[in-house]
Amino acid sequence: MTGLLTGIGVGPGDPDLITLKALKRLQAADLICYPAPEDGDSLAREIAAPHIPEGRAEYAIRMPMVTSRFPAAQVYDAASLHIGAALDAGQNVVVLCEGDPFFYGSFMYLYERLAPKHRAEVVPGISSLMASAAALGAPLVSRNDVLTVLPAPLPDDILRARLENTDGAVIMKVGRHLERVRALLADLGLLQDARYIEHATMDSQRCLPLAEVDASAAPYFSMILLHKRGEAFLEGSRL
Amino acid sequence: MTGLLTGIGVGPGDPDLITLKALKRLQAADLICYPAPEDGDSLAREIAAPHIPEGRAEYAIRMPMVTSRFPAAQVYDAASLHIGAALDAGQNVVVLCEGDPFFYGSFMYLYERLAPKHRAEVVPGISSLMASAAALGAPLVSRNDVLTVLPAPLPDDILRARLENTDGAVIMKVGRHLERVRALLADLGLLQDARYIEHATMDSQRCLPLAEVDASAAPYFSMILLHKRGEAFLEGSRL
Repeated sequence: MTGLLTGIGVGPGDPDLITLKALKRLQAADLICYPAPEDGDSLAREIAAPHIPEGRAEYAIRMPMVTSRFPAAQVYDAASLHIGAALDAGQNVVVLCEGDPFFYGSFMYLYERLAPKHRAEVVPGISSLMASAAALGAPLVSRNDVLTVLPAPLPDDILRARLENTDGAVIMKVGRHLERVRALLADLGLLQDARYIEHATMDSQRCLPLAEVDASAAPYFSMILLHKRGEAFLEGSRL
Repeated sequence: MTGLLTGIGVGPGDPDLITLKALKRLQAADLICYPAPEDGDSLAREIAAPHIPEGRAEYAIRMPMVTSRFPAAQVYDAASLHIGAALDAGQNVVVLCEGDPFFYGSFMYLYERLAPKHRAEVVPGISSLMASAAALGAPLVSRNDVLTVLPAPLPDDILRARLENTDGAVIMKVGRHLERVRALLADLGLLQDARYIEHATMDSQRCLPLAEVDASAAPYFSMILLHKRGEAFLEGSRL
């Protein structure tokens, strides 16, 4: 019997935002893998740390800082060989994923390599999308609203066109793009409908009116939530 | 000391897709509330059933079948009075929500009434969005993709325009709109990139190629996931 590969979402930061199903897979794992920087700690492992059983084999999938595709493919190829061998030896392998594995996650690069030849499954996780709305006390969408998720690095013309044609929007990966995105929202008359949050559900979580954020200090894990009927929800919201 | 109101996401159907944090709130609840039809069982309560402590007070928020806003507002007004009185009496109140409370959920109608005057929080849940992608083995989005969430009841021209201007899309609440949405996707040349799923993570879950679905039998809780680069992910997917 070959082992089972499971990508589990560990949620956005609060260790209690892991699901029972993910916990069960973690407890049954022979090998626990996680993405990590070239040097230093893995965020996914830090989030799941209170739940990681002692004495299990662990494997950090370390990604060099270089951003071209070629070295990334090499890293995933090597990791897939390592994980594939463990699965062939009958081991159950868990890969820890920040948030949800299939929502802007890197797990897909392992999945596409391993799922065709091995038993593989995904346990969904709490996304920063839902966690941020909860922390802000601000509903994302209701009824027949359109919701658009936009990575902040996209060019202005795309961001502008998509923001003009939606009811609610979430702008992800804000970080160093904050000033540009804020100016765009102001230009569209949407600044008062936008809420800023960084490090949702972590100890370092901060919620601020977008106008008050120091643009030079916005971390990569920051987000802007926006709803064009936002004023309807403001009374109970946290901002 | 007044009580705490918590809206908890119970996830899409599999009882194990509840978070530890939601479980803790449930175990500490004095009053457990949930939406329900005028007659019959509450889906949110059914999902959470294995985790509901015995002997706690329960309160079903029953919604008449009439869809005009006025009776709905009356139902939420009455429920808020009931819940508000419990909070004032120092009770901790939990409201069970299918999926995530703030993602097309009705919890916002209680939250906007109660949060201004009471301690209130939201515990995010696994959305059917992420659960469906996991079940289909199909990543939602990666890198700088735009993701658009579209309720199927929207008119054709809006669906068409939004589908033309996105990388990935999720069409929710498909149900009786399936034939119309399928024709639209075919017309846009996107049929081969679309995957159908109903009752994600429940025992009754079904995943089908969209072309094979019997349109007359699609339930309300059915969804179409689409990615314009879908072929890149097909090898490891479940369809």
